[in-house]
Amino acid sequence: MSPATVNARISPRGGLDVLSRHEVSRLRDASSGGLHELLRRCALAVLTSGSASDDPRAALVRYPDFDIQVQQQDRGIKIELAHAPAEAFVDGKIIVGVAELLYAVVRDIAYVSTEIQGSGEFDLGASDDITSAVFEILRNARILRPHVDPNLVVCWGGHSIGREEYLYTKSVGYQLGLRAIDICTGCGPGAMKGPMKGATIAHAKQRRRSNRYIGITEPGIIAAESPNPIVNHLVIMPDIEKRLEAFVRVGHGIIVFPGGVGTAEEILYLLGILLHPDNAGTPFPLVFTGPSAAAAYFEQIDRFLRLALGDSVAEHYRIVVEDPREVARAMQRGMDKVRAHRLDTKDAFFFNWALRIPAEFQHPFAPTHENMARLKLHRDQPAHLLAADLRRAFSGIVAGNVKEEGMRAIEQFGPFVIDGEPDIMRALDDLLRAFVAQNRMKMSGEYKPCYRVVAAD
Amino acid sequence: MSPATVNARISPRGGLDVLSRHEVSRLRDASSGGLHELLRRCALAVLTSGSASDDPRAALVRYPDFDIQVQQQDRGIKIELAHAPAEAFVDGKIIVGVAELLYAVVRDIAYVSTEIQGSGEFDLGASDDITSAVFEILRNARILRPHVDPNLVVCWGGHSIGREEYLYTKSVGYQLGLRAIDICTGCGPGAMKGPMKGATIAHAKQRRRSNRYIGITEPGIIAAESPNPIVNHLVIMPDIEKRLEAFVRVGHGIIVFPGGVGTAEEILYLLGILLHPDNAGTPFPLVFTGPSAAAAYFEQIDRFLRLALGDSVAEHYRIVVEDPREVARAMQRGMDKVRAHRLDTKDAFFFNWALRIPAEFQHPFAPTHENMARLKLHRDQPAHLLAADLRRAFSGIVAGNVKEEGMRAIEQFGPFVIDGEPDIMRALDDLLRAFVAQNRMKMSGEYKPCYRVVAAD
Amino acid sequence: MSPATVNARISPRGGLDVLSRHEVSRLRDASSGGLHELLRRCALAVLTSGSASDDPRAALVRYPDFDIQVQQQDRGIKIELAHAPAEAFVDGKIIVGVAELLYAVVRDIAYVSTEIQGSGEFDLGASDDITSAVFEILRNARILRPHVDPNLVVCWGGHSIGREEYLYTKSVGYQLGLRAIDICTGCGPGAMKGPMKGATIAHAKQRRRSNRYIGITEPGIIAAESPNPIVNHLVIMPDIEKRLEAFVRVGHGIIVFPGGVGTAEEILYLLGILLHPDNAGTPFPLVFTGPSAAAAYFEQIDRFLRLALGDSVAEHYRIVVEDPREVARAMQRGMDKVRAHRLDTKDAFFFNWALRIPAEFQHPFAPTHENMARLKLHRDQPAHLLAADLRRAFSGIVAGNVKEEGMRAIEQFGPFVIDGEPDIMRALDDLLRAFVAQNRMKMSGEYKPCYRVVAAD
Amino acid sequence: MSPATVNARISPRGGLDVLSRHEVSRLRDASSGGLHELLRRCALAVLTSGSASDDPRAALVRYPDFDIQVQQQDRGIKIELAHAPAEAFVDGKIIVGVAELLYAVVRDIAYVSTEIQGSGEFDLGASDDITSAVFEILRNARILRPHVDPNLVVCWGGHSIGREEYLYTKSVGYQLGLRAIDICTGCGPGAMKGPMKGATIAHAKQRRRSNRYIGITEPGIIAAESPNPIVNHLVIMPDIEKRLEAFVRVGHGIIVFPGGVGTAEEILYLLGILLHPDNAGTPFPLVFTGPSAAAAYFEQIDRFLRLALGDSVAEHYRIVVEDPREVARAMQRGMDKVRAHRLDTKDAFFFNWALRIPAEFQHPFAPTHENMARLKLHRDQPAHLLAADLRRAFSGIVAGNVKEEGMRAIEQFGPFVIDGEPDIMRALDDLLRAFVAQNRMKMSGEYKPCYRVVAAD
Repeated sequence: MSPATVNARISPRGGLDVLSRHEVSRLRDASSGGLHELLRRCALAVLTSGSASDDPRAALVRYPDFDIQVQQQDRGIKIELAHAPAEAFVDGKIIVGVAELLYAVVRDIAYVSTEIQGSGEFDLGASDDITSAVFEILRNARILRPHVDPNLVVCWGGHSIGREEYLYTKSVGYQLGLRAIDICTGCGPGAMKGPMKGATIAHAKQRRRSNRYIGITEPGIIAAESPNPIVNHLVIMPDIEKRLEAFVRVGHGIIVFPGGVGTAEEILYLLGILLHPDNAGTPFPLVFTGPSAAAAYFEQIDRFLRLALGDSVAEHYRIVVEDPREVARAMQRGMDKVRAHRLDTKDAFFFNWALRIPAEFQHPFAPTHENMARLKLHRDQPAHLLAADLRRAFSGIVAGNVKEEGMRAIEQFGPFVIDGEPDIMRALDDLLRAFVAQNRMKMSGEYKPCYRVVAAD
Repeated sequence: MSPATVNARISPRGGLDVLSRHEVSRLRDASSGGLHELLRRCALAVLTSGSASDDPRAALVRYPDFDIQVQQQDRGIKIELAHAPAEAFVDGKIIVGVAELLYAVVRDIAYVSTEIQGSGEFDLGASDDITSAVFEILRNARILRPHVDPNLVVCWGGHSIGREEYLYTKSVGYQLGLRAIDICTGCGPGAMKGPMKGATIAHAKQRRRSNRYIGITEPGIIAAESPNPIVNHLVIMPDIEKRLEAFVRVGHGIIVFPGGVGTAEEILYLLGILLHPDNAGTPFPLVFTGPSAAAAYFEQIDRFLRLALGDSVAEHYRIVVEDPREVARAMQRGMDKVRAHRLDTKDAFFFNWALRIPAEFQHPFAPTHENMARLKLHRDQPAHLLAADLRRAFSGIVAGNVKEEGMRAIEQFGPFVIDGEPDIMRALDDLLRAFVAQNRMKMSGEYKPCYRVVAAD
Repeated sequence: MSPATVNARISPRGGLDVLSRHEVSRLRDASSGGLHELLRRCALAVLTSGSASDDPRAALVRYPDFDIQVQQQDRGIKIELAHAPAEAFVDGKIIVGVAELLYAVVRDIAYVSTEIQGSGEFDLGASDDITSAVFEILRNARILRPHVDPNLVVCWGGHSIGREEYLYTKSVGYQLGLRAIDICTGCGPGAMKGPMKGATIAHAKQRRRSNRYIGITEPGIIAAESPNPIVNHLVIMPDIEKRLEAFVRVGHGIIVFPGGVGTAEEILYLLGILLHPDNAGTPFPLVFTGPSAAAAYFEQIDRFLRLALGDSVAEHYRIVVEDPREVARAMQRGMDKVRAHRLDTKDAFFFNWALRIPAEFQHPFAPTHENMARLKLHRDQPAHLLAADLRRAFSGIVAGNVKEEGMRAIEQFGPFVIDGEPDIMRALDDLLRAFVAQNRMKMSGEYKPCYRVVAAD
Repeated sequence: MSPATVNARISPRGGLDVLSRHEVSRLRDASSGGLHELLRRCALAVLTSGSASDDPRAALVRYPDFDIQVQQQDRGIKIELAHAPAEAFVDGKIIVGVAELLYAVVRDIAYVSTEIQGSGEFDLGASDDITSAVFEILRNARILRPHVDPNLVVCWGGHSIGREEYLYTKSVGYQLGLRAIDICTGCGPGAMKGPMKGATIAHAKQRRRSNRYIGITEPGIIAAESPNPIVNHLVIMPDIEKRLEAFVRVGHGIIVFPGGVGTAEEILYLLGILLHPDNAGTPFPLVFTGPSAAAAYFEQIDRFLRLALGDSVAEHYRIVVEDPREVARAMQRGMDKVRAHRLDTKDAFFFNWALRIPAEFQHPFAPTHENMARLKLHRDQPAHLLAADLRRAFSGIVAGNVKEEGMRAIEQFGPFVIDGEPDIMRALDDLLRAFVAQNRMKMSGEYKPCYRVVAAD
């Protein structure tokens, strides 16, 4: 039986309601031209937000006739939905919160296309301009709120974690919420939903009203991980690297829950930045945490990080096992330091301008044989550069093992040739093997290295 | 290991912050005299609100040294807590919502004692004065809110229902919440928590801010069923009958989920009132609902009601199986009629003054052999009187089967002698047998009638 | 031409919208029985609030057919207005703020009649019970606001001052308003309107939203001095003495502008209280202020006070001439001390329970020959007792000179015989003579003592 | 004695608190370069807002050392004031409302300079782009508020009217305010202050909270007419023509009070637009009103308009004498029509996009002999073109009579030669003569035509 659908016409609000003539026509053009499919996909994701289905990609199959049009109507716009999922509506009227996410989708896709990519004002190859673009997108999405003390914690972790780990993320969210902390995540299920749910209950118990549950996503991810229903601020960054930069610039601290290879890449991204000499002395509370059963997971990661980047890397994070209250307290203490530091350096609370994010971390990496061969996995270089290359190696090896394109390339050209120190490479293998064993990385059959090492000399 | 506790001193708010000299001293006296144990028990219940424990009675065992004192401090009061459960505090400060429930406990216990029972203003034997007392307690608890359209749905049902039924109550709450409906329950777990939880998520999705999750309890119940953490308005009525009257006077409609004998008694209470000739024509939306598995449960109840009270009783309720959305829509349509009727009769929205609640339903019933012998379970009387006696018979038979005191009385004096029509009595037996079979009534061994019938003639 | 009038039916709010059955019928009874004329007079005063007319008494002449009825309508009330002044309405709808004042009139007249005078709960001859009654009336009128720092300044002064003095009171109000101070006055024109007007502009410039402009009046005064349109909280105390007590218990400081004999009596009332030994050490900011032209006025009062009550009386007040900013700063500094003192003594911010108001100041004084002969105007007694008798003497002499009844008594029985020290009596004469000269006391012809002194020995 | 001054450092809010790096540096550059003097002058005007002085130009003389600097401070800005008027501060802290006006000054001057004039995005010679620029400046100033029904009335009239006329403007404002209408004016004294003051009192009486008192000014005017203290939204348009366009695009109706030649020019501006064939059928409530004494003034204007533009011009306005209530009602009725029309045409409520403003009304006019000779004051052309030329003629003749530059040009080159119909020219003379007689146009000696007519044929 095909699912119930609804046709509707919506007058947008929240920044889409006072538009100039140029903006109206640009919006209409953007939504009907090359961006239309992107818009359709993202819109469907938010319209099925909170759906029980595990695989939001299925939404495209379930609602094949769904369509969205941005229509000009004199000096304003209307959003026209056709064959939209009925679950987003109550007695014919769209749910207010879902509508808000829908406006966010239209707003961000149009803004990035016309003001960031199309305006010629930003040189998106230059580090400073990338940061400016990230700032502008977040400001336009009204994520940057002045005159508020640091209280935004970013939660990272897997979207398909087990029930025990999920309940643990809820407990941590609850303890954060009791302490008037707002939550920012990647806005999908699992470790991205649990902390928001826990915080919601705690905020209600503390009778706190103006809570922020911020979801930061990007077009490739939103379709796979549609925003959970608690998100009340959504922003769609143009790509993964800008999404990561948004996390570290708006968050006042980060909690990492257990996750898969994606989470490991995020850890390397963040530590690479924190290890950069320019960032020495910048407080950035970072806690790895999970229930008792996840202790081994973080021990492995810790061991790998120390081996590759040196013991001093561990000064940048703290591992807390099965203690949600201590996690929340640690974040609170850390954010007190962030506050003091921003006051000292007269920097804004709402955007971490001062943090240096080297260009290596701002540009995407395509795991071709050439690019993999160029990596340098040696300890005789600054730790932050090694972290950057480790992140890339990680990404490439994952591709070679599980992504269709990557596996085909290995078949065709043979294993990647990587210039790395043998014990680092071995540790990396061990880590991946453990991920597979713990079911954190989906793979048919056993893990098998897809590279060979050319020893450095 | 004994659980962590906290000592604290709290300045109350919300109506306890502007007190006259008389009130301050009466409050101090009330809390230190005969009411102290009652206050202590109720306070502990709210301080463990939302605790994982199944049996809140256990709280008294876990926190044997817990104490509460209301202290005069010049022209105001302080609440002093000793050895209070640490879970109610965050880093030494009481959780705001828990504190609000605590003020409610102090407020209501003192108010009932000094203004209702001790003031001499109310003749608590007279029907009108009982209603006035119910009004005054609710007003003092700030439950009566003028200038708001009818939107308060009362949910009844068991506190220890199964997971499937619990999830169903959540779904119904979600559908109610999507339609901007507020929830009132008995404020314990199970069917009293599910609808509030579902509504919370829906209210958040609809970006609705001023939500009301009202819990109406009484001293004997609160200790056994401590308020769930979502309740943001709590009122402690002096006894079960006033609690029931509060439900039907503030609610604009009632949903009954599956429950045990308590729920059946509530159904008979409400139908007895609605069947009273004076209430003919008064709209009162009433829906019995549950998941598919509960269909049989409501069929049995329906059969019993029709048999005893006549087919026309069924005009007062509707049975909806496995359709949360339809339940919500039915309540909404029903409340539209309530609104129109109140406007027509120029009655208040916030208190159903016009509903006639006969004295039979306002006074408690003690199931002694004498009282049981006085019941008349015949159809040759007005249906509302039969409903009142059925409710009492129900209560007595349950006592004779499962309550210590009742079982002892049966042992000593033999079975109750009941003056009833045989087929009504048989139907009643069948119903109770089914409750036992469905695990809705805890009983060691099989159900066995504890009475004999004296046929009417 | 007779003025335009309107008939209207109003559903009251603000405490009159959730009434019990008893309250509804008591309210209806109160308004139709002996209180009807009082209600009618007060209601007309607020309906002509802000009218250009100088003499609000004229309202009764202009609107002879005006009537007000409180009508029961099922479980609520309606206020029915007949032939009401059209100026209180806009296109047939009553102005919101005027309606609020109207509810206040109904509320207070009914409350005083049924809960204070008629309930038997208060012994209105006993000092403590008088204070309790004042508290209850103010609380019922929602004047007592907890959790707010001391910021309420009472302004006293004449209602028919000259333009220069009026503009000065506005300037003082402006400076108070700039400092987030709320205003309480007797709510008529002149020195009771100016400070509120000035504060309104300043509050607007400071973008302050929740401002309080409290008017405290009583039935005899409201008809003569209808509330100015800025008042947003009105309370009608039952008599002059309770009105004065309300001022000193809710105000955190008092400013006295130039006025007539009424103002002089108020000064003696307040100083009599502050001189009571029990009140030693209680901070109570008190400033006498006016424009340059009023300097002489305060000099005379100062001279009289020092002569009669001793130089130390001047420690209780400060005279500030032509310096609105300094007045505001002095009040602010004074209220900081009040705040610290209340915290020290754990007393409420919203009601000065600790201040001792002796019975002498709580009971009315009738200036008969007997009562006048009983006064003792000697310095060989506690200063606060002398102040009380001076206030009475003042009141009697004024009556003997300008009030019809008093003048007739003098004609009939000869001058009052007063037991007083000659130089005090002379100073009193001088003061009154000056009032006449400055046009602050209306008198046909010259001032002439209406008493003879029996020297004390 | 030189007046008291204050040095202060202010962290701006309201749109200046979340700035990008580019914006921060552009703002700093703009304020220190060629715009510095402009910024200084406008800032001083708002800092002396509400000053008693008649001539705000005097402020520059009184505060010769006043200076303002916008300073970069890491990622934000500070506004640094030196030798600023003490009256804008309370105990060292700037008054909140004055600070808001100050941010508006900085915001608009920087925005116009960098985003409008300096961005290259607008062709300020093209009609559409001028309108877009007006829109952008207003939006940036947060003047455009969506989802609000039409309720903004623009009041025009003289800034130096007499007391009777001033009180009348207050009465009209009061009647508007009673009807929940917001006010927009040129934000100086006189007819620009009176309506706001009256509305303030009425809004307070109606307990209306979110009131808008919008002032629209431009750099040449603000220095001469500093914003009155009631203005809570200020926008500085770049020139007189854009200011006029802002008035007609955001206002939902216009009231014209008596004024001088400036007011007459504004009337011709508006009628010229309304007479344009494209605007036929567009409702635009327009009322000319004043006290009885001003009746003659509007009669003369009416006579002149009918003579020059034909009797049908009078369909666009209504003259109401001495009836503030009727003025308010007329505006309300008119705005109901505006609302219906905007809904019909699906146009925004907050900006009148549909109104056609011909280029003739968007460009400034320099009254040189050449330009004056080019005017065509004939009735054989569309009325809106004649209105445009009449407005210019008016402006030129005023210049030739009272402005230094204009008088010098007449002396040097002889009278202007105007191509006009004799009776139109005579009527124009009569009008100006009447202005002089009524003291509405300052002139030494008698009015004397400064032109000669070349009859059209």
